[in-house]
Amino acid sequence: MFLRNLSRVAAVGIGGAGFAGGMFVEKYRNYAQVNAAGSFSGYDAGGGAVIPMDQEPHVPKVKPTRASQIMKFGFPGMDNIRSYNDFVLSYDQRNRVPHWVFEHLTRNHIKHNPEVDRSKCDFYEDSSIHPFFRAHNSDYKGSGYDRGHLAAAGNHRLSQTHVGETFVLSNIAPQVGKGFNRDAWNTLEKYVRGLTRRYENVYVCSGPLYLPRREADGKYYVRALSNRPE
Amino acid sequence: MFLRNLSRVAAVGIGGAGFAGGMFVEKYRNYAQVNAAGSFSGYDAGGGAVIPMDQEPHVPKVKPTRASQIMKFGFPGMDNIRSYNDFVLSYDQRNRVPHWVFEHLTRNHIKHNPEVDRSKCDFYEDSSIHPFFRAHNSDYKGSGYDRGHLAAAGNHRLSQTHVGETFVLSNIAPQVGKGFNRDAWNTLEKYVRGLTRRYENVYVCSGPLYLPRREADGKYYVRALSNRPE
Repeated sequence: MFLRNLSRVAAVGIGGAGFAGGMFVEKYRNYAQVNAAGSFSGYDAGGGAVIPMDQEPHVPKVKPTRASQIMKFGFPGMDNIRSYNDFVLSYDQRNRVPHWVFEHLTRNHIKHNPEVDRSKCDFYEDSSIHPFFRAHNSDYKGSGYDRGHLAAAGNHRLSQTHVGETFVLSNIAPQVGKGFNRDAWNTLEKYVRGLTRRYENVYVCSGPLYLPRREADGKYYVRALSNRPE
Repeated sequence: MFLRNLSRVAAVGIGGAGFAGGMFVEKYRNYAQVNAAGSFSGYDAGGGAVIPMDQEPHVPKVKPTRASQIMKFGFPGMDNIRSYNDFVLSYDQRNRVPHWVFEHLTRNHIKHNPEVDRSKCDFYEDSSIHPFFRAHNSDYKGSGYDRGHLAAAGNHRLSQTHVGETFVLSNIAPQVGKGFNRDAWNTLEKYVRGLTRRYENVYVCSGPLYLPRREADGKYYVRALSNRPE
């Protein structure tokens, strides 16, 4: 049923100062069209059942959801899962950032679309998260950090809705702007989009890294800027 | 089917230095025996379906698992759930401590049992967690912190297995010893056990708190001691 070849798996990580980010990229090339019902499970990395040619398979004709396509190779965790139109994430209530964000890129998803204009997008709060745990725009104001996209705006150009949803604050983490969000991270995002020239399907998982640093007392600490406690 | 009265709900939190702990206690009194199949779902906080008296209910006769009893009022989250014989927890891979630990206490669970001896217990690693994310005894050695139980050893006296499992490192968080783990936290644990004198069922949810502190630059940070990066 399936003929699939794992071309190459790359893991790319970039460390920034204090509150950094990491991205992992998995690239798969499909040689045959993937069976819709087969890929619906999201866990069919191994191939399908052998069914005699004269017998109808007893599988419902269900079109896979976009979320099931994106999460085809499994979930890294099940904490506060949120599905948007073109990406899926797990939300970290403690830090008000994603645990991870999963995307599925193809040439079609990232090509220039004159109907899509990211300058019309505003960052907005995720109303599905309880206000106690929701990231607010005020969390970022004056922090010195960029509101850094995990699912990049440039990866979601099929519609204005798709790009607009990448501005939900659940998809955002604080990033150092100069040198990181606007430089190394941006370069990485372009590299990942470029992979769609060589691979039919590119699966991207991104998330923040919390890196220890040696402080004055010689010990290693993980330290994150916080709001003033209420 | 059910007659249940919410007697009182209390939320108790204790803050310590840096890496502190919080505990929330919910106490429910049951006036009627809880229907086994009804409580199996773990989410039946509202009562049961109305079934005509002359009709057999179409529910399987299934004895609720201990985990379903403990989690009767729902899960705070679904991240890396682990069920032990007498408590259930969600494990935080990043910090190698629990997100939360849930217990169900009754007079019977906490009464003195001459067959149970906590001095025979040793702290041990949770082999169900990948070594990259597992808490190790070496993480605590020389840290200056106690290996603080979330599910307290004294809450699980039905058998040596029960008390022994509270020493799994997935149930442990670093706690300041003097003044906290051996004092205020211990007092809180005794208070919670004392609630079983007044309430038939006591549900306890505990977890670490990460409290921001103002540092030399006037800003608030959450800071946690880390191992030296490898």
